[in-house]
Amino acid sequence: MLDELFTTIEGGITTPEGFAGAAVCCGIKPESLDLMLLSSDRPAAAAATITRNAFRAAPTFVTQEHTTDGQAQAIVANSGNANAATGQQGMDNARKMAALTAEQLGVECLDVIVCSTGKIGQQLPMEKIQRGIRQAAIRLTRADPDSLARAIMTTDTFPKMVSVQFAVDEKLVKMSGIAKGAGMICPDMATMLCFITTDLAIAPEILRKTLQQAVELSFNCISTDGCMSTNDTVAILANGAAGNAPIESEQSAGYEEFRAALGYVTQELARMIARDGEGATKFVEIRVGGADSWEQARHIARHIANYNLVKASLFGEDLNWGRIAAAMGAAAPELDPEQVTIRCAGITAWSHGEPASFDEAQAKSAMQEDEILIEVDLGVGDAQATVWTCDLTYDYIKENAGPDVYDHS
Amino acid sequence: MLDELFTTIEGGITTPEGFAGAAVCCGIKPESLDLMLLSSDRPAAAAATITRNAFRAAPTFVTQEHTTDGQAQAIVANSGNANAATGQQGMDNARKMAALTAEQLGVECLDVIVCSTGKIGQQLPMEKIQRGIRQAAIRLTRADPDSLARAIMTTDTFPKMVSVQFAVDEKLVKMSGIAKGAGMICPDMATMLCFITTDLAIAPEILRKTLQQAVELSFNCISTDGCMSTNDTVAILANGAAGNAPIESEQSAGYEEFRAALGYVTQELARMIARDGEGATKFVEIRVGGADSWEQARHIARHIANYNLVKASLFGEDLNWGRIAAAMGAAAPELDPEQVTIRCAGITAWSHGEPASFDEAQAKSAMQEDEILIEVDLGVGDAQATVWTCDLTYDYIKENAGPDVYDHS
Repeated sequence: MLDELFTTIEGGITTPEGFAGAAVCCGIKPESLDLMLLSSDRPAAAAATITRNAFRAAPTFVTQEHTTDGQAQAIVANSGNANAATGQQGMDNARKMAALTAEQLGVECLDVIVCSTGKIGQQLPMEKIQRGIRQAAIRLTRADPDSLARAIMTTDTFPKMVSVQFAVDEKLVKMSGIAKGAGMICPDMATMLCFITTDLAIAPEILRKTLQQAVELSFNCISTDGCMSTNDTVAILANGAAGNAPIESEQSAGYEEFRAALGYVTQELARMIARDGEGATKFVEIRVGGADSWEQARHIARHIANYNLVKASLFGEDLNWGRIAAAMGAAAPELDPEQVTIRCAGITAWSHGEPASFDEAQAKSAMQEDEILIEVDLGVGDAQATVWTCDLTYDYIKENAGPDVYDHS
Repeated sequence: MLDELFTTIEGGITTPEGFAGAAVCCGIKPESLDLMLLSSDRPAAAAATITRNAFRAAPTFVTQEHTTDGQAQAIVANSGNANAATGQQGMDNARKMAALTAEQLGVECLDVIVCSTGKIGQQLPMEKIQRGIRQAAIRLTRADPDSLARAIMTTDTFPKMVSVQFAVDEKLVKMSGIAKGAGMICPDMATMLCFITTDLAIAPEILRKTLQQAVELSFNCISTDGCMSTNDTVAILANGAAGNAPIESEQSAGYEEFRAALGYVTQELARMIARDGEGATKFVEIRVGGADSWEQARHIARHIANYNLVKASLFGEDLNWGRIAAAMGAAAPELDPEQVTIRCAGITAWSHGEPASFDEAQAKSAMQEDEILIEVDLGVGDAQATVWTCDLTYDYIKENAGPDVYDHS
């Protein structure tokens, strides 16, 4: 704690003081956890960022409404059905999920955040949802945070969670996050979801602002297949149970610790999502430096991350730097190739306007690693951005080609 | 010819009067045609549109320079090597290709258009190129246009050509085009190439303007994987051999016939490229109507065409309309789902803000067709745009994952 602003700890989403949760199988998915409740023992400062997709799901409207006042106390989420493109009935069902949760937990309906993930265009089975909420409400515990991370999984192959602690005002503050992904890429399994709890005391406005910044540098920097979901939601609850003097501004004691911890939690979860992209065999980090601006750097990094030809060659373990060049050139026609340097897996492939010579055997070996770093320098400025992605594989097609994907997962 | 502005005819790129060509195997690719020459017996009005990619290939610079004056007389093109990302030596080699061609054909070097397609980042084998140009120059003929279409193929599975005739000023005018694609998607086999010949007499400025409009509505409306190539080039030569009174403006007699014929030739070739996308099993037409503007309609149509989840579900013959909705919503956050109608393979899936009920068996059957029409109405205006694409398949990954794709094709 001397050199670091925060440290990682064991634990999960119910580790921060005052939080409890439960996950159940309510029957949307056969024989797997598909509904979770998360509750704070007191109203918490709350913020949420949601997808900009015009076809965004019904629960995202409810979540937006219920966090506008900067306060919430519970989260209810189901997997297996996205409640997206479901019309008026879908809106009614999302509101009913909030109402049922509020009733069971004895909290205000306006303090309930609602999320769904799964198949688009089907109505929620509300009897199952209602039964699930009742069952979960009577099982709330601090002892089983893993189950909550599992209950929001769709095509994810592992649960995603990270926990940290830091000191504010000589109080120990804990923060924990869970996420589900398979990225923006989830099949009809629309969605990236992330829930973060902390027992920090903080004003809602600074919580919201800091969350937005953290999301911009984490979840908005991953791409698995470039497909923006209808349900993406990141929500944070800060209930103040740590007892610190509330953080009221960026100048408050402990703000830097909080910002660093939130940045770490969101980036770690984002990297886990990229690593677990559907069908992925490689984790790929793309660093674009020497740019005029962060926006330019991220635009180019994202374009490389979404370029199917680059992603397919990574799957093939082929150092096909020409495709990286083509992707950059397509993203930014203003680029001057003379100024550009391209490195892949530690091997310089293009610099000073010429292809660089490199050892083919060494390149072949380097591309066999599970983690690949693509480094690009534009040679025009000082800005840089990093984006995380994965490769494009047979299994991606397999997972996404069939109508029965979900039934088999 | 009474009711139509033009009619289709048998023939190929050397069918218009005054054109001759030849294709040879110069050894860039093992045992297949890899170099073509096309020549006019007199200087022709010429125009070319080329990729905006910042890493565009050396020959695209030469072609741009040599068509600036609106005149050209010959085209030299090779497959198997893109001469892209090849630095100064690549520029020297592209200029040398033009010079060698000019020398052999006895035309001005500044009247030679140069194109390359194939692997990025490797220097051209200039001895082979030189030998190939010499061999082709002595074999020029009007009798074998198919071979020219074959010589520019990379991963294409069939040669692409279309020919039409129309009347201008009581003279019979012929026009023919060849193209290679596999789309912007070609592996490292960068490129879409298209060459069009016509014996029409036309002023260079109106030729250029009409070509740009035609390209915007054809090649710029196809997407196989959304990957912009470094080498894309569309070039037209109009040598005036038909003897019509030259078309000098949009008001000239015969201009509408020319414009309609060029629109047809470019759209037919574009559709062939989409149909022949790498690994494709489906040809997909996406019509977006009821838009505020053509730009909005094409933007949304392209986004649907590039959305991997939509493309994978088409491969899986799954009427997954929720992914079409998600793609539209991601492309245009300003859309109002209440106004949107989505039809796929003739089946209405979403309208009036609600999912539409449809017969699952009928949908399954409809999705098994080789050609799928996706129709979307935004419900806000009168503009519409059409984009052509294909599905995303195992074979796309297979063709693009390996370093040895080219050697095997």
